[in-house]
Amino acid sequence: MADVKRIQKDLETLRDFSEPGGEGTTRFSYTPAFRAAADYLKAEMAACGLAVREDGVGNLWGLYPGGEPEAAHIISGSHLDTVRCSGYFDGQAGVVCALEAARMLRERQVRLRGGYEVLATAMEEGARFKNLGGSKFVMGVRTEEDLDTLKDDDGIPLRRALREYGLTGTLEGVCRREDPVRAFLEVHMEQGSRLERAGKELGVVQTIFGCRWFLITVEGTTAHPSVPLEERRDAAFAAARLVTRLEEAAAPYRRRAALTVGRMSLYPGQINAIASRAEFSLDFRSGEESCFEELDAVLEREMRRVEEEYRVTVRRELYTYTPPTRCSPEVSAALAGCAERLGCSFLPMDSGAGHDAMVFARHWPVGMLFLPSRGGLTHCPGEWTDYANVARGADVLYEAILQLDAQRP
Amino acid sequence: MADVKRIQKDLETLRDFSEPGGEGTTRFSYTPAFRAAADYLKAEMAACGLAVREDGVGNLWGLYPGGEPEAAHIISGSHLDTVRCSGYFDGQAGVVCALEAARMLRERQVRLRGGYEVLATAMEEGARFKNLGGSKFVMGVRTEEDLDTLKDDDGIPLRRALREYGLTGTLEGVCRREDPVRAFLEVHMEQGSRLERAGKELGVVQTIFGCRWFLITVEGTTAHPSVPLEERRDAAFAAARLVTRLEEAAAPYRRRAALTVGRMSLYPGQINAIASRAEFSLDFRSGEESCFEELDAVLEREMRRVEEEYRVTVRRELYTYTPPTRCSPEVSAALAGCAERLGCSFLPMDSGAGHDAMVFARHWPVGMLFLPSRGGLTHCPGEWTDYANVARGADVLYEAILQLDAQRP
Repeated sequence: MADVKRIQKDLETLRDFSEPGGEGTTRFSYTPAFRAAADYLKAEMAACGLAVREDGVGNLWGLYPGGEPEAAHIISGSHLDTVRCSGYFDGQAGVVCALEAARMLRERQVRLRGGYEVLATAMEEGARFKNLGGSKFVMGVRTEEDLDTLKDDDGIPLRRALREYGLTGTLEGVCRREDPVRAFLEVHMEQGSRLERAGKELGVVQTIFGCRWFLITVEGTTAHPSVPLEERRDAAFAAARLVTRLEEAAAPYRRRAALTVGRMSLYPGQINAIASRAEFSLDFRSGEESCFEELDAVLEREMRRVEEEYRVTVRRELYTYTPPTRCSPEVSAALAGCAERLGCSFLPMDSGAGHDAMVFARHWPVGMLFLPSRGGLTHCPGEWTDYANVARGADVLYEAILQLDAQRP
Repeated sequence: MADVKRIQKDLETLRDFSEPGGEGTTRFSYTPAFRAAADYLKAEMAACGLAVREDGVGNLWGLYPGGEPEAAHIISGSHLDTVRCSGYFDGQAGVVCALEAARMLRERQVRLRGGYEVLATAMEEGARFKNLGGSKFVMGVRTEEDLDTLKDDDGIPLRRALREYGLTGTLEGVCRREDPVRAFLEVHMEQGSRLERAGKELGVVQTIFGCRWFLITVEGTTAHPSVPLEERRDAAFAAARLVTRLEEAAAPYRRRAALTVGRMSLYPGQINAIASRAEFSLDFRSGEESCFEELDAVLEREMRRVEEEYRVTVRRELYTYTPPTRCSPEVSAALAGCAERLGCSFLPMDSGAGHDAMVFARHWPVGMLFLPSRGGLTHCPGEWTDYANVARGADVLYEAILQLDAQRP
């Protein structure tokens, strides 16, 4: 059985590697807090005998070797970075489960046929640089030129951030998409409350929702606030109208898709000046390709409608798109089977959130286990899953590693 | 006649006293750009023989003395600060007209009965510290304790800003509300396009709209973007809905009142996090007290409605309120009479914008002259009125000074 105390210590140690200011844990990629967390993990990996490697974009790998050099590896892990004012389970619980499984392999002196690797990725959240960055470099989706074109909100290019973080700023040895991999397994807390409401201990993910991010810009004209409505080109009223129309259009999709506006800025941003420009973000998620096409049409139609009504211009920039992803039926069946054997109740379910597993699924068979989130809260200081749930995840993960290693095609 | 070339030189010189970055002129109170502009004006005032005084909050006064020490003074001027990315006429044209009138008095060696003072105020725009600050200190509406409680967006208290600007940080000699004043006359460009559309050279203001500023805060709960709409407490959608409802409620008021949302922020401000909090500003203007009461009721009702629909809480903070103000009928009649004698076409009209004259009206008779704004644009780099219009304003102002000085009650 996984050691709950050890898991608790890992999580609470990681919790405190946080940038100062604000509630909860804030650990953007390549910050001093991220470095401290990475160093802690490297030490813990080394302590249980793993061969530790930090790749060129700061992903951490810890190898538990197998007996057959040619046999495909099993990899498990999740991301080490967080959003601003996060809790300390999102991403981190999956890293700790993968590490705990390695400790269990070590303690029991298990001889695997293929190697087992623990992975902690960077840039998953998109809080600094674009999201899913760590896994996209590993899959070769992002390449050398992205080191210069990807910039954070302060305009710092990724390559410079990597160098300042202590890496070389090159991608040598990062891309592993050609490596034979038996399975990538990711434990992650659910982003929502379905497990809690269903009273289940674990979720076994079937499909990971795709995610499309847009930046919407509404251009009007600033003027004095005494200018009557009908003479204005008011970017603030136009943007608010567009947001409410999109909310209305998205409502009927309910569990099939979700729409979020997380950022909004008005310029020049004075109380006593009509806004000349509004910028806001759209996060659209769905498990169905057709939903993305439908939303595209709705967005286009409502943009044109607001342009006409408010005499503004509206542009959209597609910032990122990841299509919906099916987990490997074989890997999912192994996870479900192990949960069943261990007496865990579980729910087959979809993931509304994107995960590194989605990127790895381009070349590797993937499977995901969800842990229940109290009140459905994540990405906030109040996010919580009992330490015992994390241990449950580690137990099922450990069993699945053994089974997938033994049952090779 | 006023000297157009001299007026053009004054305005273009002031235009370039701007904080770096951004289009147009940005000159917040007490910045290096504001100091440079104030020093230029002081030199110009001294050059035409005025006795120059900088008061404790940085208002500039230049006295052209009268023959009778007991006779009430006539004061004219406007504000020297600007919003971010402003043009170089708003406020500044009124200061230049007042200065040009002093030059004309000097050149013609006019002997006034009472003194004539040129005034350039600080803090009118509210871009740094609250709006109408310069005039409110002169009227004693703001007092000693405001030097410590008023803070800019960086948290710098007004007293510290004044000291860093080179003043003492005390209010000695600032309040002049007990001084006998014959009239305060303010020339300002119209904030709107009524003069342009009516083809008139000048506006003579009857009523200055009152202005009420609210800060609205919507509190919800952040969560992952995959959480379905009906389980959210989404502050962004709630705020957008409230803004559109207020826009709809304000629309029927047309020229009687105007509503503006100039600032909007979402927190935590991540693309992939539902907003836990939205903050936005409301600027509401009207010439009628009853309109403010009606809007208050609408705002309250719509806040409660959104609270219920989105399961959020909505608070409002009244940031500032200045009631509508009537100009002095005697002073307005003098301005209209002078315009007529000089062959200027003019429109009796209301001011949708607040002005220092509104504050001075608490104790002094005030009158305002509007200059036409091209395309109705102000508070933006494109704001424009022909230099000849500014000269027209200075001519009428000069005549009105002579007439009001001669016709004493």
